[in-house]
Amino acid sequence: MKIKGKNFHTIWLKDDDEQVVQIIDQRFLPHELVIENLETVDDVERAIREMHVRGAPLIGVAAAFGMYFAALEAVDNQQFTKYIYESADKLKAARPTAVNLAWAVDQQLSFVSENYKILPSILLENAELIKKESIERCKKIGEFGLPLIEEIFAKNKKVVNILTHCNAGWMACIDYGTATAPIYAAHDKGIPVHVWVDETRPRNQGARITAFELQEHGVPHTIITDNAGGHLMQHGKVDLVLVGTDRTTRNGDVCNKIGTYLKALAAKDNNIPFYVGAPSSSIDFSLRNGFEIPIEERGAEEVKYIQGKHDGEIKKILLTPEKSPAANFAFDVTPARLVTGLITEIGICTASREGLLKLFH
Amino acid sequence: MKIKGKNFHTIWLKDDDEQVVQIIDQRFLPHELVIENLETVDDVERAIREMHVRGAPLIGVAAAFGMYFAALEAVDNQQFTKYIYESADKLKAARPTAVNLAWAVDQQLSFVSENYKILPSILLENAELIKKESIERCKKIGEFGLPLIEEIFAKNKKVVNILTHCNAGWMACIDYGTATAPIYAAHDKGIPVHVWVDETRPRNQGARITAFELQEHGVPHTIITDNAGGHLMQHGKVDLVLVGTDRTTRNGDVCNKIGTYLKALAAKDNNIPFYVGAPSSSIDFSLRNGFEIPIEERGAEEVKYIQGKHDGEIKKILLTPEKSPAANFAFDVTPARLVTGLITEIGICTASREGLLKLFH
Repeated sequence: MKIKGKNFHTIWLKDDDEQVVQIIDQRFLPHELVIENLETVDDVERAIREMHVRGAPLIGVAAAFGMYFAALEAVDNQQFTKYIYESADKLKAARPTAVNLAWAVDQQLSFVSENYKILPSILLENAELIKKESIERCKKIGEFGLPLIEEIFAKNKKVVNILTHCNAGWMACIDYGTATAPIYAAHDKGIPVHVWVDETRPRNQGARITAFELQEHGVPHTIITDNAGGHLMQHGKVDLVLVGTDRTTRNGDVCNKIGTYLKALAAKDNNIPFYVGAPSSSIDFSLRNGFEIPIEERGAEEVKYIQGKHDGEIKKILLTPEKSPAANFAFDVTPARLVTGLITEIGICTASREGLLKLFH
Repeated sequence: MKIKGKNFHTIWLKDDDEQVVQIIDQRFLPHELVIENLETVDDVERAIREMHVRGAPLIGVAAAFGMYFAALEAVDNQQFTKYIYESADKLKAARPTAVNLAWAVDQQLSFVSENYKILPSILLENAELIKKESIERCKKIGEFGLPLIEEIFAKNKKVVNILTHCNAGWMACIDYGTATAPIYAAHDKGIPVHVWVDETRPRNQGARITAFELQEHGVPHTIITDNAGGHLMQHGKVDLVLVGTDRTTRNGDVCNKIGTYLKALAAKDNNIPFYVGAPSSSIDFSLRNGFEIPIEERGAEEVKYIQGKHDGEIKKILLTPEKSPAANFAFDVTPARLVTGLITEIGICTASREGLLKLFH
């Protein structure tokens, strides 16, 4: 999608140097557009852990490039295979909740038996393939989700109000996004949409990144606090909820950014459809239900401090009493019973074992 | 309650000057304890509108003192009665949602037929009485709410985890608080309690003020984002939800800080008792249900900017894209069906017409 009229992906191989991967360092959005060079597996691990890149699909692709660096570094290493496997473990541990991360790393590991001299080029090629497939999946989610918005517009003949939580936009992926793909598709087709953007504390991915994306692409939107969605739903101001997922289990439970569960409860209470943009790479058939997913607990300082712009500079301020403790659970699980449907790249299904099996045999 | 070991109220007549009312200007908490002098009805109106003082019970008392200033100012005014009534309207309009404000102003207006020369002293006396009664009501809410916590402790024999939203603490009242009164009562009695403090965006009354109160009084607590409560409830980490109310209608619907409805939904979904500290002054028998309550919409800048401490100074930073719009609904309505009970100063009742009528004939 576009930033200041120029097409961007969130991650790409540097034009003139095959040993450098470039990313948008998302920590400084929306105030600054910082492009960062990654040149080692440790660079990639840190970029994932410190959330320079974030969003389940994007960290999968980033980790795939990380494995390419691991192979490059391993070539000169005595313990070639050991180095590759240690790098894989390191990358997987950078964020525990999203399944795409382990999925992409494992895909890369399946090539390790190849001749070690050609492994880097194989892993680079496969990272580019994972990236390309990720883009394609998002595009397809947009195509399958579009009719949901079209139907609401056909019925109501007025602006379709969509609420989204966190950033499951193109910045969480490579392009299009998951939750946002149907929104961009509808907007580009001329269907009037308006997006309620949940701020998404503590890291404000909604207020910072989703708002930035929509603003740059020209999609009408309004930022709200995470507290406001229930009130809007009670008053008929939300027609559809669209969110992403970090991991969906085989019974249809959806693990996503903390607070998603509260919005799903409110959608249910007000009879509002609640859909999840769920690329197959985020579906974990190995888990029976969402409560088997490890929930990442992050540092208290993410709750106690916040970053923003003051006098043209990015500053971090303290929000709380200095000595008060804070807890920071990063994700929650929305039970399948609250999910109207999963929008995957091969079609929409109910959030259930049966629904998923019908699509993914 | 105490700040740095010294007993405080949130509002008081200045020691040596009967024409000055002092308040804690809560906008600077928890970083600075600022005491502000109010000397005119306009001072009081601004302090309420700009939220130097906030919380339904406290703005009621502040408005009562405001009416005292109105009478003082009216003495020298040709159009005595007109001035008083205009002041009353101005004070009532400062915040539209809490019923205590109109309730306190109307009480003061009932004295206007008195001799205008003695009116100021009558209104001062009555403001002090309203203040005293407000303290007493909170204390009683603590006494009636205490057994709820005691019962949970008796059953579980471990720390009782209570979640609260916004600040319905002593800082929202004069002393004790409404939602916090049972918590302080339990803590002071030696029952181990721990409070999950919802941050309460956009103005962070939880992270700033409730945390400050509990910290100063020594009550164990942890600040969480507004998004986290549902996850905690799903994992058995919340035994009881206690919140305040800005207005409760005769059918038991509870209007409170935006986001309360989402916590009530999660409590219901996880079978967790959800109680509301509701002094009679916040019950509006004139309204049939919560959807008749005017919901205050505040400025977008409260969502887009936030204030905190940086390098020892209080600074305001921009959180969002400069041009993205934001909406800021200040309250929502929790339907009575989600409320386990109302804790009033004369006892606990169900959130229903029948429950309220049993207590308030």
